[in-house]
Amino acid sequence: MEKIKNPRKILVPAEREKLIPKSGGKEKAYGFHGRAPDESPQRNHIKESGLLMPKQKCYPPVPLTDIRISDPFWSRYLDLVKEVMLPYQWDALNDRIPGAEPSCAVQNFQIAAGLAQGEFQGEVFQDSDVAKWLEAAAYLLAAGPDPELEAVADGMIEIIEKAQRPDGYLDTYFIIKEPKKRWSNLYECHEMYVAGHIIEAAAAYYQATGKRRLLDVACRLADHIESVFGTEPEKIQGYPGHQEIELALVKLYQATQNEKYLALSKFFIDQRGKKPNYFQKEWEGSRDRRTFKTGAPVPPPDLKYNQSHEPVLQQEAAVGHAVRAVYMYSAMADLAREAGDQELLKSCRRLWDNIASKQLYITGGIGATHNGEAFTFAYDLPNDTAYAETCASIGLIFFAHRMLQMDMDSRYGDVMERALYNVVLGSASRDGKRFFYVNPLEVWPKACGGNPDKQHVKPVRQKWFGCACCPPNVARLMASLNQYLYSTDEDTIYTHLYISGEAGIKIAGGEMRLKQESSYPWDGHIKFTVLSALPEDELSLGLRLPGWCRNWSVLFNGKPVPRPVVQKGYLKVAAHWHEGDTVELRLEMPVECLQANPQVRADAGKIAFQRGPLVYCLEECDNGANLSALSVDPGSAFSVFKDSQLLEGAVVIEGKGIRESEDGWGNRLYRPYKAAEKETKIRLIPYFLWANRAPGEMAVWIRRR
Amino acid sequence: MEKIKNPRKILVPAEREKLIPKSGGKEKAYGFHGRAPDESPQRNHIKESGLLMPKQKCYPPVPLTDIRISDPFWSRYLDLVKEVMLPYQWDALNDRIPGAEPSCAVQNFQIAAGLAQGEFQGEVFQDSDVAKWLEAAAYLLAAGPDPELEAVADGMIEIIEKAQRPDGYLDTYFIIKEPKKRWSNLYECHEMYVAGHIIEAAAAYYQATGKRRLLDVACRLADHIESVFGTEPEKIQGYPGHQEIELALVKLYQATQNEKYLALSKFFIDQRGKKPNYFQKEWEGSRDRRTFKTGAPVPPPDLKYNQSHEPVLQQEAAVGHAVRAVYMYSAMADLAREAGDQELLKSCRRLWDNIASKQLYITGGIGATHNGEAFTFAYDLPNDTAYAETCASIGLIFFAHRMLQMDMDSRYGDVMERALYNVVLGSASRDGKRFFYVNPLEVWPKACGGNPDKQHVKPVRQKWFGCACCPPNVARLMASLNQYLYSTDEDTIYTHLYISGEAGIKIAGGEMRLKQESSYPWDGHIKFTVLSALPEDELSLGLRLPGWCRNWSVLFNGKPVPRPVVQKGYLKVAAHWHEGDTVELRLEMPVECLQANPQVRADAGKIAFQRGPLVYCLEECDNGANLSALSVDPGSAFSVFKDSQLLEGAVVIEGKGIRESEDGWGNRLYRPYKAAEKETKIRLIPYFLWANRAPGEMAVWIRRR
Repeated sequence: MEKIKNPRKILVPAEREKLIPKSGGKEKAYGFHGRAPDESPQRNHIKESGLLMPKQKCYPPVPLTDIRISDPFWSRYLDLVKEVMLPYQWDALNDRIPGAEPSCAVQNFQIAAGLAQGEFQGEVFQDSDVAKWLEAAAYLLAAGPDPELEAVADGMIEIIEKAQRPDGYLDTYFIIKEPKKRWSNLYECHEMYVAGHIIEAAAAYYQATGKRRLLDVACRLADHIESVFGTEPEKIQGYPGHQEIELALVKLYQATQNEKYLALSKFFIDQRGKKPNYFQKEWEGSRDRRTFKTGAPVPPPDLKYNQSHEPVLQQEAAVGHAVRAVYMYSAMADLAREAGDQELLKSCRRLWDNIASKQLYITGGIGATHNGEAFTFAYDLPNDTAYAETCASIGLIFFAHRMLQMDMDSRYGDVMERALYNVVLGSASRDGKRFFYVNPLEVWPKACGGNPDKQHVKPVRQKWFGCACCPPNVARLMASLNQYLYSTDEDTIYTHLYISGEAGIKIAGGEMRLKQESSYPWDGHIKFTVLSALPEDELSLGLRLPGWCRNWSVLFNGKPVPRPVVQKGYLKVAAHWHEGDTVELRLEMPVECLQANPQVRADAGKIAFQRGPLVYCLEECDNGANLSALSVDPGSAFSVFKDSQLLEGAVVIEGKGIRESEDGWGNRLYRPYKAAEKETKIRLIPYFLWANRAPGEMAVWIRRR
Repeated sequence: MEKIKNPRKILVPAEREKLIPKSGGKEKAYGFHGRAPDESPQRNHIKESGLLMPKQKCYPPVPLTDIRISDPFWSRYLDLVKEVMLPYQWDALNDRIPGAEPSCAVQNFQIAAGLAQGEFQGEVFQDSDVAKWLEAAAYLLAAGPDPELEAVADGMIEIIEKAQRPDGYLDTYFIIKEPKKRWSNLYECHEMYVAGHIIEAAAAYYQATGKRRLLDVACRLADHIESVFGTEPEKIQGYPGHQEIELALVKLYQATQNEKYLALSKFFIDQRGKKPNYFQKEWEGSRDRRTFKTGAPVPPPDLKYNQSHEPVLQQEAAVGHAVRAVYMYSAMADLAREAGDQELLKSCRRLWDNIASKQLYITGGIGATHNGEAFTFAYDLPNDTAYAETCASIGLIFFAHRMLQMDMDSRYGDVMERALYNVVLGSASRDGKRFFYVNPLEVWPKACGGNPDKQHVKPVRQKWFGCACCPPNVARLMASLNQYLYSTDEDTIYTHLYISGEAGIKIAGGEMRLKQESSYPWDGHIKFTVLSALPEDELSLGLRLPGWCRNWSVLFNGKPVPRPVVQKGYLKVAAHWHEGDTVELRLEMPVECLQANPQVRADAGKIAFQRGPLVYCLEECDNGANLSALSVDPGSAFSVFKDSQLLEGAVVIEGKGIRESEDGWGNRLYRPYKAAEKETKIRLIPYFLWANRAPGEMAVWIRRR
């Protein structure tokens, strides 16, 4: 790769990679882990196409291998990923969880590899669950050795390698069930979605272990896809029905430096939505075909559903299937960054703004309807029929993380934090074995069973899903959480998330080792200590001032910083750093009553409680049944305390509420209004902890008095 | 028919029929119309089974032919039925409405009759639209001669007769498309639903014109069905997938006095829900079958959907498809009355109570979800996703009308009035050419197009529907409205609806001719004048005191009635009546702010406005966009005035509201709460008039301040 001459020392991925510590370095002391690759990946010579010429400033993230999390709040979750989620999900993928829907995902690979007999079972994209699990395992292996886990992963990789066809094709559904129908139903059949997850897993596993076996599988698979799809007349000018491979190919490019993978990703993005529409043509060419799932005649494709209704550069608003959308926007941001494409970046910003200012639940959930698991339109954010899929919020974090690599603006970190601390954390049970796929903001358990419009909403987390995209997605996000904490430019280390631990950050030709400590999210006091500082130049620490924070202060070595500079939501503390220097950030964290934009009909006259990054909710087990009968005066006093008995020390909010009396109604459904209310105590718990005690009603938005 | 010896002179249907005035009587003076039948219908001898032995008191309705409506409010609608709806719907059935979905209903009959070539088109129950139209035409012909309409109807009847198979079978879908598959898919295919509507039309047409042709078709059809279905081992022990024929067979029995039709109806009701379930067996016996509509494999039957999940006597709550449910409950009430079945009556009361006290929208709509057009569960009454199908409210009126024939209790009349004046009236446009199928209580037009969960909700009435059950159902209800006004027992004439006109009411061996006058629903002053009174015994006028009315007074010949007696919501004025006697009822009709039972989550913290029987609503064209930003203090003053400019003199309500300010939000979706409200004027119009001006938002329930 041609070295980019840039006087401001932007660290582009190729440079970054050289700086990633390999085995044997002093990073060992931090428990970092990483091994030299078996051999160097092949690198193609970059064409003079300009494809890879960055045209805007870039803020690369500090790689996950350079950061160790050791946090009173998060370590518990990360341990859970390692000790419970991954083993449990491995059992699930192997159909060993009593009472859960069988996955058959591993078995499908075994059959395709000729190691077992049987029929393909599960969703057409079942393979991806295995891939996501492997990706999560790779992140754990990057954080520290685990020979047992690595042996299991290697075993699985061997099966996957055996399942791959000699030409590189790999998708167990088509290998087992319809070998003649490869690539014939891109709209429904997820072949490239599965390939994308295998590629992501391969890149992560290679970076963590240096082992090439899965990377070689991924390269052969990507090479095969590149031989089938493209602008050339003999190739298919199609693109995936479910976007995912686009961002995966960027990772494959980063792992191999082979530019053709970046070009293939760009082809898929550029081709999408061009007229005549590929999916429309595919459908017209197969009128006699029955739909994969139900056997009914295939209906005409819903082009908005998979964001192929128009070219991406023309898309003004986030529409359609939310996961597809944010995976695609993430790839667009990757390509904008890697190819320096300003038009693509403009589209990314426009689509981001649309989501963040018009289609985002206060919990960081996206996707207002279960119909197509989709975005709807501006300000349409119903609480009790929300979809807000876990995977969609994870994809939103991907998107935010990529936008932060181009625009250093706290709004991206704010959304990342909101989605992470509310939807993503809340999707898993405290024991790591049960998950929400849908993350509603209001639940009436009777309605989940009794009204089919709400049957997608579950009042309790489920063991495993037939369509199990979310649990392994949570695992891979949490296992790679460290990569979301910091990024750098030539003279600033930016902190996006307040999670305790240590980092060795390469910057300005040297390295700064930094310790972060806090009791976040329960407390807003965060302390950074310089453990060692090699660079001699003045550097800044850039600390995200969260959007929820109205008052803050900052100390440098215990003294107020005289003229703190805030740029796009980042507080910058500049200094020539020495070992032992400290920066203390104090974010005031009072209870806030939030209201929604009046255009959000569903939240009219209501308030929601937030403290720090955490959205709060009422639960029936604290407040009695019929939460809709409660209202709250936002001007009244609320007390906050850490309840050591409850949910391992969560901070709860208590205050005064008003409850509509249910007395004297008899058999009546309607009556002339008469005031009949009584004062009551209300208690709110963090949203992410809901449904961990008795099943019951839950509400985030509460009637305002 | 054996004459029932009853000292209290209950008028059973057989007796009633004898009293119905035929041609040439003095009823001519009232414009009543009716001709002697071509010949007497065959009457079977009643078996000694006890099937027809009434065991409880019965309150027969005064037949529609004995009442003429001449009402400042309603005559406009009845003229619309005659002059616009019926001709327009005839055009629709003949595919002559530009821009409307083609019906093909008449064409299907022509093809089945061998009078045209072509394929069956439309829904599997398309025939029923023609039958409902004929039934409505029959009611118009009963009210007065219309040779042109009668000629059109006779022509249609001739085609229907030709379409009928020699064995009596009649259903154009199966005749044209799948002649070998008769009765093989009772769950989906509506053959008996269609038969039921043909039978209803036949009974009405015979009673109106005395012409037997369609009645004979209906008898042959019913006889054929009776030869196919029954408890005998060689017969099918099945029952309809869509209930309707059950109540139709009772009408056929009433028209022919042939008891076997009553017995067949009772068989269908008794058989329903018995174990093993018929539909379950039907499904198990046809695993290879594809579903009628989509071609997908037939899923297992949803037994609650069509109320076959358990025997009707065990059903505790209204569940499933709302129209199916209320049609069935109507038939159950018919059978309870005709067969004196106390257990069936108890079930009817239980199901009625469940609907009226737990599942009824304030507008008289039923069916909380579009998923299966169905009831959900107690207190689940969402406003913006409501289904509240027009046909379901019509069926609820049928059910109420039948319950009134056994329980003289104003609660039935109250619901009948609520459904009639709000949902049914509101379903048709002011010009009678457009209809709502779904009657929501809250509409955000953007959401109807932008959120698939609300795509069933339409912000404007539609021209015609592919599934066009509602428009002809509205027509037949309105054309037969007079039959819902009065009923009698041996010594009381009960008035259920306050609609001006004249009636000749047979009672106590004589006749009382009565004039009713009012400006209802705009005004609560109703005057009854005795035009002539033949009976010499003391008789009572029983006047329904509507549930919405809190203060009333009554005058007899201008003087207060000393000790007015109220029995189950009916005010009884007893007298020896003479020509010129008057009774004046004054129902106070202030603006009422109603609240819903606090268990109704969707209406928590909200109020609805009602005045008299009319529910009111906000519309965007009066109150600006974003109605959810408005709130109202129920204690503030509201003015009422007749707006002669607006919608032909409707009474509108005006008052003070508070509007949440939308200023200063910029691009924000959430912010810390701050009070930002301004006072504004609000204007409410009767719900039934919504969507007659500019399309826009509408809301019945308004946030309470």
